[in-house]
Amino acid sequence: MPDAVELIRAKRDGGRLSDGDITWLIGAYTRGDIADEQMSALLMAIYFRGLDPGELQAWTDAMIRSGERLDLTGLSAPTTDKHSTGGVGDKVSLVLAPLVASCGAVVPQLSGRGLGHTGGTLDKLESIPGWRARLSNDEIVTVLRTAGCVICAAGDGLAPADRKLYALRDVTGTVESIPLIASSIMSKKIAEGTSSLVLDVKVGSGAFMPDLSSARALAQTMVSLGTGHGVQTSALLTRMDTPLGRAVGNAVEVEEAVAALRGEGPADLVAVTLALAAEMLRLAGITADPAAALGDGRALSSYRAMITAQGGDPDAPLPAAPHTEVVTAEQAGWVTALDARAVGVAAWRLGAGRARKEDPVSASAGVICLVKPGEPVEEGQPVLELRAEDPARFGRARAALAGAIGIGPQPPELADPVLERIAAGSPGLELAS
Amino acid sequence: MPDAVELIRAKRDGGRLSDGDITWLIGAYTRGDIADEQMSALLMAIYFRGLDPGELQAWTDAMIRSGERLDLTGLSAPTTDKHSTGGVGDKVSLVLAPLVASCGAVVPQLSGRGLGHTGGTLDKLESIPGWRARLSNDEIVTVLRTAGCVICAAGDGLAPADRKLYALRDVTGTVESIPLIASSIMSKKIAEGTSSLVLDVKVGSGAFMPDLSSARALAQTMVSLGTGHGVQTSALLTRMDTPLGRAVGNAVEVEEAVAALRGEGPADLVAVTLALAAEMLRLAGITADPAAALGDGRALSSYRAMITAQGGDPDAPLPAAPHTEVVTAEQAGWVTALDARAVGVAAWRLGAGRARKEDPVSASAGVICLVKPGEPVEEGQPVLELRAEDPARFGRARAALAGAIGIGPQPPELADPVLERIAAGSPGLELAS
Repeated sequence: MPDAVELIRAKRDGGRLSDGDITWLIGAYTRGDIADEQMSALLMAIYFRGLDPGELQAWTDAMIRSGERLDLTGLSAPTTDKHSTGGVGDKVSLVLAPLVASCGAVVPQLSGRGLGHTGGTLDKLESIPGWRARLSNDEIVTVLRTAGCVICAAGDGLAPADRKLYALRDVTGTVESIPLIASSIMSKKIAEGTSSLVLDVKVGSGAFMPDLSSARALAQTMVSLGTGHGVQTSALLTRMDTPLGRAVGNAVEVEEAVAALRGEGPADLVAVTLALAAEMLRLAGITADPAAALGDGRALSSYRAMITAQGGDPDAPLPAAPHTEVVTAEQAGWVTALDARAVGVAAWRLGAGRARKEDPVSASAGVICLVKPGEPVEEGQPVLELRAEDPARFGRARAALAGAIGIGPQPPELADPVLERIAAGSPGLELAS
Repeated sequence: MPDAVELIRAKRDGGRLSDGDITWLIGAYTRGDIADEQMSALLMAIYFRGLDPGELQAWTDAMIRSGERLDLTGLSAPTTDKHSTGGVGDKVSLVLAPLVASCGAVVPQLSGRGLGHTGGTLDKLESIPGWRARLSNDEIVTVLRTAGCVICAAGDGLAPADRKLYALRDVTGTVESIPLIASSIMSKKIAEGTSSLVLDVKVGSGAFMPDLSSARALAQTMVSLGTGHGVQTSALLTRMDTPLGRAVGNAVEVEEAVAALRGEGPADLVAVTLALAAEMLRLAGITADPAAALGDGRALSSYRAMITAQGGDPDAPLPAAPHTEVVTAEQAGWVTALDARAVGVAAWRLGAGRARKEDPVSASAGVICLVKPGEPVEEGQPVLELRAEDPARFGRARAALAGAIGIGPQPPELADPVLERIAAGSPGLELAS
């Protein structure tokens, strides 16, 4: 039997862990046979030394095998899914899953909750009266047969090693490691049983990966991991310098997503969603025009079916915040910047997000971007509308927004929100297959 | 109040911890307010990033202040002590403490037990019937007043942060870090209240530090730390390629130490002991000839007084092993090498050492080096005598000795066992004072 201290020392000194070592480490840690203080020392050594492609494959594989793997092969259409590394105003999943389903694929989207300044898809959908995030495996399959898509919480049976490792990384300063991030995301997505997967890796101030090169490395690592596990995987790098769309929060983002499903969405949200939809359909081998499905009501119909199948009432009014305040322009000109992270932190402080995973969130709190980069403003014109259940929260939210709004004399050049596509075989980290 | 995760991330990213951060970290960890898994991640980050001289000073200071500091200022003569990083056959303390005391200094030597292939001074002395390692602070002072020296266990009140950190480092692969080693040793030695300190940093196969440059760095770091805390400190780097003297074990080392105190010790043991004695007396400001004190019975008299004051009978026969075997020379020639680590591991496997700190040790087990490097042998002549209480132990001890004895056609050149002296102000790591 391997010895935990010897394996920690080996990784610390730049050595390589064998497949057997890694299988033992993940299994023993999940069972509680390796202490948290040993695993955290190993994670910190991995932070400094990395994992080579073979080690990372074995690590991810061991995390997948720590729990169950859903079997969706009995469904009649190809399965495809999307994962986002998280952004501000990122309600893409709410539009994308029904859109792609309405084009003929099956979309099993097992999601997480928000932590910190980026929101969580489940938190957003829970603002819909009656809607349930927790489904049994049988219920997941039933919703997929009914609506073609599901967005729900990943069950406790999926990659339990990841849940335990993630909680440990969170308190030991070992979150920011590309192999550990990649294996955490991919172990859950591979265990969920999708045949293909598109990764939306956000880049910019509001993203987990602030710079293009680390986002690219993460994307390449995840694409290689998925491909190595038999899941067709590609990634888009998309901009997250400014919130996606105009709404940041929970109920407000559901409303904006529904508008997009009616064909009335903001341009940046629609552009990112259509690019991801095209990629998912391509991997699923389906020829369809997702833009048409957004315009003709098919995507909206799939959305309504999914919400209904999960107990929600798509026609019920969503919670509205009792208190609002506005942030106004300090001068006239063109909005050149509206910092995603600052707006995300403001929405979080207004109650839309949580600091600890057991905290509740406010369904109605959030920020509406009344003006976005590229649009003109007058001095004193409202730029942001802040919404809260508790007016005491406005002060700290405003503080987060200091310096967040840039106004200049010229309209800025607006870049395409989709920066780059990374597919299997792209240059970079490649796993031995 | 600082946040543990933020401090781990700061160190991980190459940042500097403030004095206040370090004081809080060590205090909160000792109280149990920082979890083991957070401290082990921080220790691994320190393994990779190091501690700068100011951080190390603060870290050591916080460890000292986690417990009591003995006050020996009421004694009539200057205090001086020695610490060895541990070697095979290293019975120097047993000779040195009474020798230096017999020259007029007071030697308060608080010691540890052996772990792994290097022996522990307390384990050796416990082979003397009646001798007690655990003394109260009052008893320590009484023995010092009676005999001029004491060798005893460090009490639980001294640097409790170090005890907790050391146990954590042992199971998390974070032992081999120069700042962590230096702060562990120096916090205990400074807390023990000595006015001056000489460090015997062993270099070679049987030592903790196998190469000269890391041994030198450790010595310089410890000398700076001691000096920065008002303790006059210097270090000797001494060779540990082959056992010191001929006896390796517990009772067998006491017998060899007593022989040295009678002026009949092996040349290498006497040379290292006299060099350390000269250094201790110099730091204590005492002019004396330690070689004379070894020859005229004064050192032996101090030893007998110390043993008696700690409940031991210096005239009692020591335990003898019921079983012996010999390892013979495979060819005739000159012994060119006798590997210290291999002999240490053999003695350990014979029962002289422990694998875990709660294991008992055998008083009588050990290895006698019948022939040492520089001496001639005939083919088939006994080179090592192995001693054990349990004859089943001979097999694994012999296995450890494979390749340990080098025999060549020419006598080897024997190097001086003292390699180098490091004093405050030597080049290398210097602490801001």
